[in-house]
Amino acid sequence: MLIRPIQESERPGLWKVMQHAVRAGETLAVPTNATPDEAVNWWAGGKEAVFVADDGGQILGSYYLRPNQAGNASHIVNAGYVVAESARGRGLASALCRHSLEEARRRGYLAMQFNFVVETNAVAVRLWQKLGFQIMTTIPRAFRHPTKGFVGAHVMWQSLEVDR
Amino acid sequence: MLIRPIQESERPGLWKVMQHAVRAGETLAVPTNATPDEAVNWWAGGKEAVFVADDGGQILGSYYLRPNQAGNASHIVNAGYVVAESARGRGLASALCRHSLEEARRRGYLAMQFNFVVETNAVAVRLWQKLGFQIMTTIPRAFRHPTKGFVGAHVMWQSLEVDR
Repeated sequence: MLIRPIQESERPGLWKVMQHAVRAGETLAVPTNATPDEAVNWWAGGKEAVFVADDGGQILGSYYLRPNQAGNASHIVNAGYVVAESARGRGLASALCRHSLEEARRRGYLAMQFNFVVETNAVAVRLWQKLGFQIMTTIPRAFRHPTKGFVGAHVMWQSLEVDR
Repeated sequence: MLIRPIQESERPGLWKVMQHAVRAGETLAVPTNATPDEAVNWWAGGKEAVFVADDGGQILGSYYLRPNQAGNASHIVNAGYVVAESARGRGLASALCRHSLEEARRRGYLAMQFNFVVETNAVAVRLWQKLGFQIMTTIPRAFRHPTKGFVGAHVMWQSLEVDR
């Protein structure tokens, strides 16, 4: 398994990785009826960097990095992760997140922030906590879960500053 | 003073409203050396709606609305406000915010969220609190203030649901 920058020609292929999560509508804040192009563009468009998990030529997951805000706030990075339904349970999300933290440090970012982690996505929440993120707040009723109704969404954050 | 939707031809004129705040770099998360076009595009580009405060033909302030997230999270609106330096102290920010809350309710939004309110912008923080917003969390060291160094940024939120 190699985590490496995406090649431009691979962008349309991200749809296969995202498809299940987009259509399920349980974790991602993207329209469940988005076209493949719309979904891929929502994921990869305008990002600072997009990486993929390449398993012998097959792309099984992806993450992106971007400054969460601009200007005098551009030292906090935002990231997102997606793993193909077929590749769940193999530690891929953890590997992608660890890689992204390293990559963000390398790029000089001082903290990483997730703006929207659906609280019912418990596996992800626990994983991000294990990898150093704190729940800073939970926005009430922020996500209309397809079966659970309105649920909250966490803002999660961790410092990347070594000496603090 | 009339608060109304901006006309396309008026967009370049927003620079006069934003200029002081952009160059000061004390409150907005936009590069302090942004060109007028860049700054106006950061403000108004891709937004759902942009309104202006029109004082007898002179634009003195502006706000925007946009869904803070997409898909199953698109019922929370994000807004931003800017008031020309020359028009401070006249209650314009309050009028813009009240108008935006009404407009957001009219559009069916269920909550309003500010993602990034610099904590040293105390006048704004107090005003948003007076208008119903809560500080949900403060992201540490999220903003590099030009004279105060690293300061925090609040996530602020209020429900727009009447019956809750």
